Amino acid sequence: MGLFSLLLLLLLLLLPLLAPGAAIPRSPALRSLGRLHLPTRLTSRPTVARNYSILYFKQKVDRFGFDINKTFKQRYLIADKYWKKDGGSILFYTGNEGDIIWFCNNTGFMWDVAEELKAMLVFAEHRYYGESLPFGANSFKDSRHLNFLTSEQALADFAELIKHLKQTIPGTENQPVIALGGSYGGMLAAWFRMKYPHLVVGALAASAPIWQFEDLVPCGIFMETVTRDFKKSGPNCSESIRRSWNALNRLATTSSGLQWLSVALHLCSPLTDFHDFWMLKDWISETWVNLAMVDYPYECNFLQPLPAWPIKVVCQYFKDPNVSDQQLVQNLFQALNVYYNYSGQVKCLNISETTTSSLGSLGWSYQACTEIIMPFCTNGVDDMFEPHSWNLKELSDDCFEQWGVRPRPSWITTQYGGKNISSHRNIIFSNGELDPWSGGGVTKNITDTLVAINIPDGAHHLDLRASNPLDPKTVLLARSLEVRYMKQWIRDFYARQGKAVLNSF
Amino acid sequence: MGLFSLLLLLLLLLLPLLAPGAAIPRSPALRSLGRLHLPTRLTSRPTVARNYSILYFKQKVDRFGFDINKTFKQRYLIADKYWKKDGGSILFYTGNEGDIIWFCNNTGFMWDVAEELKAMLVFAEHRYYGESLPFGANSFKDSRHLNFLTSEQALADFAELIKHLKQTIPGTENQPVIALGGSYGGMLAAWFRMKYPHLVVGALAASAPIWQFEDLVPCGIFMETVTRDFKKSGPNCSESIRRSWNALNRLATTSSGLQWLSVALHLCSPLTDFHDFWMLKDWISETWVNLAMVDYPYECNFLQPLPAWPIKVVCQYFKDPNVSDQQLVQNLFQALNVYYNYSGQVKCLNISETTTSSLGSLGWSYQACTEIIMPFCTNGVDDMFEPHSWNLKELSDDCFEQWGVRPRPSWITTQYGGKNISSHRNIIFSNGELDPWSGGGVTKNITDTLVAINIPDGAHHLDLRASNPLDPKTVLLARSLEVRYMKQWIRDFYARQGKAVLNSF
Repeated sequence: MGLFSLLLLLLLLLLPLLAPGAAIPRSPALRSLGRLHLPTRLTSRPTVARNYSILYFKQKVDRFGFDINKTFKQRYLIADKYWKKDGGSILFYTGNEGDIIWFCNNTGFMWDVAEELKAMLVFAEHRYYGESLPFGANSFKDSRHLNFLTSEQALADFAELIKHLKQTIPGTENQPVIALGGSYGGMLAAWFRMKYPHLVVGALAASAPIWQFEDLVPCGIFMETVTRDFKKSGPNCSESIRRSWNALNRLATTSSGLQWLSVALHLCSPLTDFHDFWMLKDWISETWVNLAMVDYPYECNFLQPLPAWPIKVVCQYFKDPNVSDQQLVQNLFQALNVYYNYSGQVKCLNISETTTSSLGSLGWSYQACTEIIMPFCTNGVDDMFEPHSWNLKELSDDCFEQWGVRPRPSWITTQYGGKNISSHRNIIFSNGELDPWSGGGVTKNITDTLVAINIPDGAHHLDLRASNPLDPKTVLLARSLEVRYMKQWIRDFYARQGKAVLNSF
Repeated sequence: MGLFSLLLLLLLLLLPLLAPGAAIPRSPALRSLGRLHLPTRLTSRPTVARNYSILYFKQKVDRFGFDINKTFKQRYLIADKYWKKDGGSILFYTGNEGDIIWFCNNTGFMWDVAEELKAMLVFAEHRYYGESLPFGANSFKDSRHLNFLTSEQALADFAELIKHLKQTIPGTENQPVIALGGSYGGMLAAWFRMKYPHLVVGALAASAPIWQFEDLVPCGIFMETVTRDFKKSGPNCSESIRRSWNALNRLATTSSGLQWLSVALHLCSPLTDFHDFWMLKDWISETWVNLAMVDYPYECNFLQPLPAWPIKVVCQYFKDPNVSDQQLVQNLFQALNVYYNYSGQVKCLNISETTTSSLGSLGWSYQACTEIIMPFCTNGVDDMFEPHSWNLKELSDDCFEQWGVRPRPSWITTQYGGKNISSHRNIIFSNGELDPWSGGGVTKNITDTLVAINIPDGAHHLDLRASNPLDPKTVLLARSLEVRYMKQWIRDFYARQGKAVLNSF
């Protein structure tokens, strides 16, 4: 297993987490994903019961070619409790890489604003995830069956679904639709507005790293943000973690050292070789990344049950970097325990898991081998990780071995414009400054109508989560700004139709 | 051969003429196109010698899927005589359904404005036409090989080509690109600006019937415009043609009548049955349509060598509608002779040909069976043709029989927005009021930057043709307006880059 493996793992494992709290079982490495299986169904545990209808819409498998006329059922959810036929609106969640019910239950913001916007809520599942499988159990069989898993096809599905809703639900035909999404779903929301502005009046793209492609942003920015989160969450915290790698490396040089590490870290399966040790380090890195993404101000069960501001809790164990290797590893165990054993019920740590539930990891690993090529790197100086450079060649070869396809790293920029997007209108890009994905996001206004909302105390799309008494003021402000923009789009829509602007907007 | 055949023929035969004077051999009927063959290469006869380089760019056959990694060579032409590295621009012709060299030679407007705009001219061939065949001789073999013939794939090719040019030709990287095209190429130019506004600062879409889809415009508008052209080109002209169908029908009831018709019309092959007679009427209808498209103010060899204002010449033979059936047919022959025998060299009329040269008829007939579904109809009252209704079912069945594919009549609207395009910017829609395609075009300003330029005395994209001493003032005005808008886009582009606006713009 080469040096590249860590990055490869990060790429494969972190990107699914783009979902609002998406959680996938940790895959050991790209190569071993070769054994294809369907993603396990997610067990959803919403904190609030949501009432919605589950519906299905017949979509063509290939929206961009006519040879294959096969169809499949796309699942979508509708909640219309607060919807008004007269002067209402439609909030359309552009589903990302996972079960749509889970996204529906984890995007409390839409539920919280439904009444104010008189909105029908629609959650559309992304093809190849959840139940929306174009070829059923064969969907992930090979590159031929996976050929229709692209962002373009997903956007075309959304377009057809919106047209279908407008044709079949009386009252919707003359109402404005707003696209919303978080993470990859946020990218889809933004791209949907760019490509189908005739179908949505605007988009809220939360924590959408649309610039984490090619060289649009430095490849190290992601891990630098993770590092910054740890640095500011406790004295010597990031420095301790930076030192921990060499401590681990020194201890791992002998088999007795590996044995000691296995015991000290309470691993369920003892480390037996160098490969295991690499896995361990990847797993630890991923833990820090996950913590940066879910560094929320309140206790919640997102990727794992966690305390409020979990990085602060973790950093309590990393106050002193000038300790022995053994002591540093013991501190490391305490820190990891915060993430993996907040409940106190866990008997040992399993390095093949980082999250509690599962999501469409196969589909995502294919997308991360084709369109969604996001360069990541570390240098160990500006970040607290071991240095790894970005190696497209190696990724390409691994992808070809696994899926029989090769990445097209510049395609997303060609298709969606990269940084040259100023001719579009009505997109809100929101980012939490704690969120490592903010580095690839739009964090400065581009024009009056392509606006950035930054949330200093926010992690990964905190704004899309349900309101919480412990929410920092900055996220409350962000949400109220978002609502204000959405109301403006709705007002403008009705004004263009020559209808009186409603007082409530 | 049912009543629908005429419309089917019109659909199949006229649409390729969307090209600036595109010329295809007349196909007898959809069914008989089953024998697949490659389109004959076009023999181009430009009136002015054009100097350009012929180049090829490696494109992926499937831009929207990763399973097929095959590539093909897209042909494109570059002329840079007047191009300036400093402060110049790039005019990019979005090639339509034919040989790009022919379009290059027939789009004199670009050559005429090159110096003023300091422009590099680029003409990009559309996949599946000319030499840009994704599967070489097998490109039209079956629906599997034709699967990559869509407007979306063509636009993606243009996008990749522009990126390639900017990466490989020093000086182009920071220059504005403007898309230009006529007819289907005009639709592509407009759609390209809509979908890839990061790559082109604006588009000139000449005679682009982007609304000739679904029910966006009445299906009869096309033939009504043809009729209007004849009506105003001579007294009783359209009325005589309207009466000619029944005269023909009455004469065709007996075999001796068919024989008489064959002689009277100087047909190369005598009519033997009802099928031949239907072919004859289709051929005559198509002739009137072609004349409406090329009713230019000067003598030219476009679809056929023709006099100036050819409909006026034709109408000289249709002054008196109250003549015997035989006399009307003899007048009809004289009228047809204007179109088919202006040179005086033709010995007989061949109803299997309406134009002089050939173009990508196979590719176009596939496109007219998949994406480019334009409803046409006649009622014999508002137009001078026999009544035919629009029958999608029949088209669909015929398409399935011929190509194994079925039309998706609403897809173009879903993809490109139909009438709801006001959020886009910087597109000029120019239309000649004589041109039957203007009925499906944008003939009123939509916004300040989505503008319509109407040319009262213009036929099919007269504005894109080379300047001519006999050009009516209205087309001169149109061209100068077009140049003014293009200069504005170029100025705005350089202003956004913070560069001094050049005096010349």
